Amino acid sequence: MGISLQHFEQMKARLKTPRRSAVASASPGFGKPAPWHGVILGIDPSLRGTGFGVIRAGKAEPQMLACGTITCPPHWEKSRCLAKILQTCREVLKAHQPETCVVEGLFYAQNLKTAIIMGEARGAALAAVAESGVDIYEIAPRKVKQAIVGHGGAQKLAVAKMVQRILRLAEPPGPDAADALALALAHVHSQGRFGLNAPKKI
Amino acid sequence: MGISLQHFEQMKARLKTPRRSAVASASPGFGKPAPWHGVILGIDPSLRGTGFGVIRAGKAEPQMLACGTITCPPHWEKSRCLAKILQTCREVLKAHQPETCVVEGLFYAQNLKTAIIMGEARGAALAAVAESGVDIYEIAPRKVKQAIVGHGGAQKLAVAKMVQRILRLAEPPGPDAADALALALAHVHSQGRFGLNAPKKI
Repeated sequence: MGISLQHFEQMKARLKTPRRSAVASASPGFGKPAPWHGVILGIDPSLRGTGFGVIRAGKAEPQMLACGTITCPPHWEKSRCLAKILQTCREVLKAHQPETCVVEGLFYAQNLKTAIIMGEARGAALAAVAESGVDIYEIAPRKVKQAIVGHGGAQKLAVAKMVQRILRLAEPPGPDAADALALALAHVHSQGRFGLNAPKKI
Repeated sequence: MGISLQHFEQMKARLKTPRRSAVASASPGFGKPAPWHGVILGIDPSLRGTGFGVIRAGKAEPQMLACGTITCPPHWEKSRCLAKILQTCREVLKAHQPETCVVEGLFYAQNLKTAIIMGEARGAALAAVAESGVDIYEIAPRKVKQAIVGHGGAQKLAVAKMVQRILRLAEPPGPDAADALALALAHVHSQGRFGLNAPKKI
């Protein structure tokens, strides 16, 4: 397989981009920083428990700014959950002003009904992010696990423990928040070095 | 099949509800009107062409207040489409202040990927509606066609022509807008008479 024209264009564009250190020291008015550092929001949407995690990444070790789960009890109507996801995402965006948002790419759903419900939760979250003008990227779940734990088949608990370690947290975050933080960290990891695996902007 | 306890409770609740004419003539301060009259918003969400239609229903013939399609060109990123769906729904809600919103219930998707994308569009639209405090109901596509054309297997064009006739429009609305108007009209139809088929609130 040769290098496609698209890849060549991406490489050219990358060469024109100022290097990590140069961007980090640039004044805030100097255009948008590269997406793999700054404040990054990871979201793991689901109707009853959307995880979110905000980190700051740059020259120093990544640092957690916030994380949590948007919990919607089973007796709530679906529409009420969607409104809460929309509102909470908007609050998180306002409080932390992320430059980049990362969500899971291709994911598993048991059947069409589940897929639609998962899609609805995603739609509410992504619409809030997109409306605030933040770029959204997708990473495949397998790549997240690879980046955080070292292999694509890692268990949820292993991801949470590794997230705790990387971010030097007193205790492991809840499972949904841990997944969201893992997304943000995986984005930094995949982009921070050679960045040939350009994440998919959606 | 006997009448279930749930049906019996619904019937009891219905007997306590003031009748259509009584509600229609009640003062605006007299609580929320029954959902099958007043201003009704139908939405038929999809990523590239979300249809919407607003009607006023009551004692007189139903009347169209607005309809249209939220068009997102193929080259737009998904997140941009979701933001536009969210914003346009919010504008329509603000302009027409509907009491009730109706969307399609169980619908068909070719595969999981399509189902997720359809779900995302739905999530953006429903979150906007739910955030504004409007109740959302679902009707199965088959029931919409039955209510408008008379049989569940009707073609899209037949639905559009019938919507044009019912609402006395100069020309048939675009296909997405027609589907949305059909949803609103089907809701009025199913609720306006005996209303034993209570629509599903979501």
